[in-house]
Amino acid sequence: MCLGLKLTKLLLRAWIIVYSLMEKQRDFSEWYIQSIDNAGMVDKRYPIKGMNVWTPYGLRIARLMNSYMREEMSRTHHEEVLFPVLVPEDQFLKEADHIKGFEENVYWVTHGGLKPLDVRLLLRPTSETAMYSLFSLWVRSHTDLPLKVYQIVSVFRYETRQTRTFLRVRELSFFFESHTCHVDQEDAERQIEEDLKIWKNLAHKFALPYLLNKRPDWDKFPGAHYSVVPDTYVAAAGRALQMASMHHYRDNFSKVYDITFEDSEGQRRNVHQTTYGMSERILGAIVAIHGDDLGIVLPPDVAPIQVVIIPILAKGQKARVTKEARAFYRELAEAVRSELDSRNMRPGPKFYEWERKGVPLRVEIGVEEIEGGHITLCRRDTGRRRRVKREVAVERIVSALRRIQADMEARAHREMKENIHTIGAYDETPSKGIIRAGWCGRESCGLRMEERLDRGLLGTPFFGEDFKGHCLECGEETTMVAYAARSF
Amino acid sequence: MCLGLKLTKLLLRAWIIVYSLMEKQRDFSEWYIQSIDNAGMVDKRYPIKGMNVWTPYGLRIARLMNSYMREEMSRTHHEEVLFPVLVPEDQFLKEADHIKGFEENVYWVTHGGLKPLDVRLLLRPTSETAMYSLFSLWVRSHTDLPLKVYQIVSVFRYETRQTRTFLRVRELSFFFESHTCHVDQEDAERQIEEDLKIWKNLAHKFALPYLLNKRPDWDKFPGAHYSVVPDTYVAAAGRALQMASMHHYRDNFSKVYDITFEDSEGQRRNVHQTTYGMSERILGAIVAIHGDDLGIVLPPDVAPIQVVIIPILAKGQKARVTKEARAFYRELAEAVRSELDSRNMRPGPKFYEWERKGVPLRVEIGVEEIEGGHITLCRRDTGRRRRVKREVAVERIVSALRRIQADMEARAHREMKENIHTIGAYDETPSKGIIRAGWCGRESCGLRMEERLDRGLLGTPFFGEDFKGHCLECGEETTMVAYAARSF
Repeated sequence: MCLGLKLTKLLLRAWIIVYSLMEKQRDFSEWYIQSIDNAGMVDKRYPIKGMNVWTPYGLRIARLMNSYMREEMSRTHHEEVLFPVLVPEDQFLKEADHIKGFEENVYWVTHGGLKPLDVRLLLRPTSETAMYSLFSLWVRSHTDLPLKVYQIVSVFRYETRQTRTFLRVRELSFFFESHTCHVDQEDAERQIEEDLKIWKNLAHKFALPYLLNKRPDWDKFPGAHYSVVPDTYVAAAGRALQMASMHHYRDNFSKVYDITFEDSEGQRRNVHQTTYGMSERILGAIVAIHGDDLGIVLPPDVAPIQVVIIPILAKGQKARVTKEARAFYRELAEAVRSELDSRNMRPGPKFYEWERKGVPLRVEIGVEEIEGGHITLCRRDTGRRRRVKREVAVERIVSALRRIQADMEARAHREMKENIHTIGAYDETPSKGIIRAGWCGRESCGLRMEERLDRGLLGTPFFGEDFKGHCLECGEETTMVAYAARSF
Repeated sequence: MCLGLKLTKLLLRAWIIVYSLMEKQRDFSEWYIQSIDNAGMVDKRYPIKGMNVWTPYGLRIARLMNSYMREEMSRTHHEEVLFPVLVPEDQFLKEADHIKGFEENVYWVTHGGLKPLDVRLLLRPTSETAMYSLFSLWVRSHTDLPLKVYQIVSVFRYETRQTRTFLRVRELSFFFESHTCHVDQEDAERQIEEDLKIWKNLAHKFALPYLLNKRPDWDKFPGAHYSVVPDTYVAAAGRALQMASMHHYRDNFSKVYDITFEDSEGQRRNVHQTTYGMSERILGAIVAIHGDDLGIVLPPDVAPIQVVIIPILAKGQKARVTKEARAFYRELAEAVRSELDSRNMRPGPKFYEWERKGVPLRVEIGVEEIEGGHITLCRRDTGRRRRVKREVAVERIVSALRRIQADMEARAHREMKENIHTIGAYDETPSKGIIRAGWCGRESCGLRMEERLDRGLLGTPFFGEDFKGHCLECGEETTMVAYAARSF
């Protein structure tokens, strides 16, 4: 490439970066919509608000993420099941707290064909009430326990608030929910520990940092004994984002749905239960946290296309370059998920398109590369370009992907950490970020803190934290800390 | 094993076979329910009739079958998408024929939370009306064509007739639907040809025989130009079973949903469309056709567990046998989908359980086998047992599975063929089976034939058949043949 062209490219790139440096920060909401749209992940033009069409690229990302969930489930001996979408009204009405949590947000099926149904049906918002009447048949004896099942399915929430792709939708297409039954509270506790290990592995794959919060009682899942939640932080939006939840139900549901077993002494007892929920919200977090002003940036483990190869065709050398690009593609495809973009287009628009799709690594092969015996690599996350010797190119790409994954995770982690502010008095409250402050644990103080901080309490760190200070509200000495933030 | 034990086993087996020889024939419906239940494929006790819970084993079979569909789709460059479950009433009401076909069979969502919805929503019975408003945005120019997408999703039919697992249900959990758009009728024709090739490959995997019928006009899909359907025959039930359908829509839907493109001359034209539908009905066909009096029999390609290894533990030799069984399992698992049943139970009940799960091949390893340097194989489809030298056991198992697959397909094919009866006059009509007879092609004759044969017309062979004879009804000379049968 001649120097003039190189300079033009550099300037163009600098301009895009400078221009767009503002974009994500300036108007996060607009940026978020545009990035998803430009990447071709979903089509928002479906004629029901809050219900999106998954287009092929978005679907491939979601499926890849689901495959990691399935791997973790298989490792921990959960079995996959599939329950019907519809739940009869009478099943749903059994657990009072649970209904109260959902009654404003469920879709009701009232007619079959032209006639009203005898029993109204609802589209599951989650599957407790669908599953538990069956669990009471499946669980008979202590030898049936623990029962550990999961499914990845569509669930429905009639959202009245503003919807936002992946984050607040009316149909969650990939709601993961595992449900377990145990002999006692302690064994259910151990399940929560296993869930947290699973989450840790997944968060690593998704390159997402998080705080593990035990939600305050007034904000736990309807019907739960307690709820643990990994929250992350989207700096550009100034908002925390809940990415999953693990609930310990004790025997709250099993008493209602009569899930009992005969213990080794022949005594009938109620099981203790847990659930673990996740969804495409996590994909929303990936977009929101890793994306930059060019659009989405996919961590390599989540990218259906990890490397795209772009032949740089010069006049009279097309056949030679194409041949070399094809040969390299065949070799590379054995090692990583890759694609050769051999469309009859100029390289510039191709670069742009794949950048917007968030593909982690680009390989350029042109006459210069062939003659120099190397290839050119360009990282999506940093924009850094470098040359790599042709004969070691595949292994270098493999290790580059590993490095990108680690760098993205570290960068996101750093960003979250920088946005946590420990305060000792209300007047130290910054305008943005997560607040960390002492809390005596009383609900009255917590609720007043929410009001005065203008932020919701995310809760207290599940594994505790070394802290000595005073309750932000009442000033009482405490060793307990609470996190607070505005949330999606 | 001593002779006495062997004889007892043989007698027991003979008794089971003789007793149960009657079972599938005597009461197919009951046998069908029991077989599915005994295999642990679904749980029918969900509190909505016609909606089943997929338990782990059934789900694994279904997913394996879906994976073959996805492979075929990928081979033929279809892309996977995912549309919302709900369709707005106004979208649905656009195509008149289509509505008429479904209005009695759709579930209506009328309320969100406690309030009635402005626009009623229906649970898709199939996705034409959900997809086509988006297709009109996706297709702009002839360069966007052909558009080939598919999804595998839940669809809902408010069935008023008796439901039957996999065959007639209110929620189809694995409805496969591909939808394509083409520049003209001829290209859509070519798509139907591709669909038929895909079906041929799949039917081979599923070991299912079929007749390819073009449905008579009065029985085609609502809105279609024509429908092609692979029908199979379940001899034990005396009924034909539709396993899939390919529809040529011409521009019937594209005119209504305004799916147009600019051709190479700059002219706007309507696309021609096709669809291809399948579901877990195929699994129903596998159960119904291949099952025997012991329960379901899975063709090896469809079996999540192709081989089960059962250690035959003799007193004082447990460790030795277990060790050998484990070693063999590790080796075998590299080659085929296998499982080692090391539960602390006697072999008899284990045999019985795995037979009822339809696992194609059983391996027995006991002291006798170890000392003889062999293993014992037992085929689920024939019950035949034989010894195989230990050192070639894995490769013999691989080829045995291939043979079982081929034998099952051939057997089913033979059975269907034997049940096709060509008749020249009504008084030759047998009480069971598929009727093959001349037809002039007139609707009036066809409808009368249906009445007098007490069978529905499946249609005419899609690729034609050499035939010279007379219309069964009017006696007019014809070269066209029609098939008729009672159907599920």
